[in-house]
Amino acid sequence: MAYPEPIRRLIDELGRLPGIGEKTAERMALWLVNHPKEDALRLATAVREMKETIRVCSVCCNVSLREPCELCENPKRDRELVCVVEEIRDLWAIERSDAYKGLYHVLHGRIAPLDGVGPNDLTIGRLAQRVKKGGVREVILATNPTVEGDATAHAIRQSLAGTGIRITRPARGLPVGGTMEYASRMTISDAMKGRQDFSDGAR
Amino acid sequence: MAYPEPIRRLIDELGRLPGIGEKTAERMALWLVNHPKEDALRLATAVREMKETIRVCSVCCNVSLREPCELCENPKRDRELVCVVEEIRDLWAIERSDAYKGLYHVLHGRIAPLDGVGPNDLTIGRLAQRVKKGGVREVILATNPTVEGDATAHAIRQSLAGTGIRITRPARGLPVGGTMEYASRMTISDAMKGRQDFSDGAR
Repeated sequence: MAYPEPIRRLIDELGRLPGIGEKTAERMALWLVNHPKEDALRLATAVREMKETIRVCSVCCNVSLREPCELCENPKRDRELVCVVEEIRDLWAIERSDAYKGLYHVLHGRIAPLDGVGPNDLTIGRLAQRVKKGGVREVILATNPTVEGDATAHAIRQSLAGTGIRITRPARGLPVGGTMEYASRMTISDAMKGRQDFSDGAR
Repeated sequence: MAYPEPIRRLIDELGRLPGIGEKTAERMALWLVNHPKEDALRLATAVREMKETIRVCSVCCNVSLREPCELCENPKRDRELVCVVEEIRDLWAIERSDAYKGLYHVLHGRIAPLDGVGPNDLTIGRLAQRVKKGGVREVILATNPTVEGDATAHAIRQSLAGTGIRITRPARGLPVGGTMEYASRMTISDAMKGRQDFSDGAR
């Protein structure tokens, strides 16, 4: 005995989503089974409408209803600054912080040899073209502070070699609200190496 | 700045699923954004087809493509045994164990005063009607061994009072693979109270 086929198929489709195991997919599917038809169909419709309206921006590879995207078109943004992020969600995390007013470049991944992801699977080539066209003053490599993010940052630095453009990375250190006690040795090492002046007048 | 509206709506819809927080919903939505249209639409289609084909069985309240459901119609099942479970997923967990060959009754919930769920929100009334029609020898109350599951079992026992039908609950004790060391006091208490004969010849 097993679930009726339409429920089985729904569990399979939900189980393909990232971070969703068999048990969670089962739970979600049975929630949809038990809820009114309109509620469940709102999810189906949301998936469909998203796929039908959302485009990848040809400039920065962000996703948007418009081409180029709202960020690339916004006259208030500093067009000479390009912040390179791994994923769209990183872009939105930075946007929510309200700490950055330049443009972006979304790689749609990171170099991960074990998963078979190399530089050519990302949008590094498009970034290099974009920079070589001119008009960019600085590229901020905001890939994650992980082994893969660091490897990706190195590959991008190589691809931009000879352009003479300033290349930076965000500061590494203790996260706000974190404690020395629970920080990893690498984080403490980063925080100590990058320590900042705190004398009167500084900061 | 925020996500484009169709992505925002998809995150909202995914975030309504049980056990899915804002961050997970965002991750799933962006996975769907980044994957080919056919892949994403398979999920939308699975939701729609499930809602269009799956019915609630009028006998046992299980879900099925048929009415009555396959389990209720199966001539190989013991029709005099009814196992009462909280949710459809409990029914399928028991089916997978291959340890039971009777029929079922799905409550679609449990009594939970804090969530405003009382006996009338479950299918307890339908169970009582079913039993009173006759043909049932034993009702197994397989609600979960939790405070809410126990309260639900008590309410069902009350609703079946006077029918003279045998009412049982599954054994409680140590789970296979569990250890005394990590078992809760309640589980150890259940296991000791329900201890079984292990002398030569028994088991």
